[in-house]
Amino acid sequence: MTDRDALPTTERTRLHRRPQRGSHELALIRSILDEALVCHVGFSAPHGPVVLPTTFVRIGDALYLHGSPANAMLGRLATGVDACVTVTLIDGLVLGRTALHHSMNYRSVVMFGRATPVTDADAKARALEALVERAQPGRSRACRPPNARELAGVSVLELPILEASAKVRKGPPLQEEGEDAALPYWSGVIPISLVRGEPIPCP
Amino acid sequence: MTDRDALPTTERTRLHRRPQRGSHELALIRSILDEALVCHVGFSAPHGPVVLPTTFVRIGDALYLHGSPANAMLGRLATGVDACVTVTLIDGLVLGRTALHHSMNYRSVVMFGRATPVTDADAKARALEALVERAQPGRSRACRPPNARELAGVSVLELPILEASAKVRKGPPLQEEGEDAALPYWSGVIPISLVRGEPIPCP
Repeated sequence: MTDRDALPTTERTRLHRRPQRGSHELALIRSILDEALVCHVGFSAPHGPVVLPTTFVRIGDALYLHGSPANAMLGRLATGVDACVTVTLIDGLVLGRTALHHSMNYRSVVMFGRATPVTDADAKARALEALVERAQPGRSRACRPPNARELAGVSVLELPILEASAKVRKGPPLQEEGEDAALPYWSGVIPISLVRGEPIPCP
Repeated sequence: MTDRDALPTTERTRLHRRPQRGSHELALIRSILDEALVCHVGFSAPHGPVVLPTTFVRIGDALYLHGSPANAMLGRLATGVDACVTVTLIDGLVLGRTALHHSMNYRSVVMFGRATPVTDADAKARALEALVERAQPGRSRACRPPNARELAGVSVLELPILEASAKVRKGPPLQEEGEDAALPYWSGVIPISLVRGEPIPCP
């Protein structure tokens, strides 16, 4: 694997538990980030750790967050504090013959870094366009784009993907051993997916 | 509203942005916690903030997390550090006639507190049983429960629900005004839900 294919392992992204489920491969990290609709952003506030959900989009090897200039989280992140951005996709409920072998199939990314404000109007517009495209491909051309006043009224932050790891569990429950293997209980996986329903037009 | 119906507003749970979307009502907080399959736990590690996803269950007015005694996050939380536990349900993609009016429908809970280890074997067994029941109601009686050795090999932490708030966005996009109201673009909501698929039995 070349340097371009994977991120370096750092003290923060070394996987201690079940390292066989972990990866620093960029292709996997990107694919998880691109499928998730929200991320959970952690940072230290004066009164302790805070985790808030927010939408985001990846362009190249950076994530973009946005919101009101009055948004307290964005304001805090913009000062350059350490942040941890975590994204989790749930793929299935894993049901073993024993309670102990119940688990969950998932794909997650944990990313560490510091944000910087995007001040260039074109770069802000690109990030917001990409965010709208996530909701529905082509949507950025099927709505009115932000005008200069609206762009100025949105804060956009950039977080480079430099230090991140992915973790994936997939497949059936762990194989039961001995007497447990003969237990008369169903075992397997209940797949879980995020599904889009029938669009509801504005009244 | 009586004290029993809602949590007090604290410095950490006061909603600054769009407070009309916020609530400290316990019934709402409980319902969001009970629907979510994972939470995102934030805490300060020696190298900065960390956010990790994990399964959890609510029993009464406490959340229970579990994992291996070797799990670094559980070990850190067990020392009594401040934690923030956040849960997010995505309900829909909101598509306005303008890019600015794109949004997301969601229900989230942000909870602050400190964890304590559950050492009593019966209390641990109750928490693990509730976790298995979340995967599928009745499942705790359709698998072998943990034996004493297995129980001893699992760490369970309790986080009381004392300081928490919910935030909810629902409904159509914000009404567009002036010329924007006449824009020839579709607007509305694409509902999103977490769906269970056809169970896949163990091979």
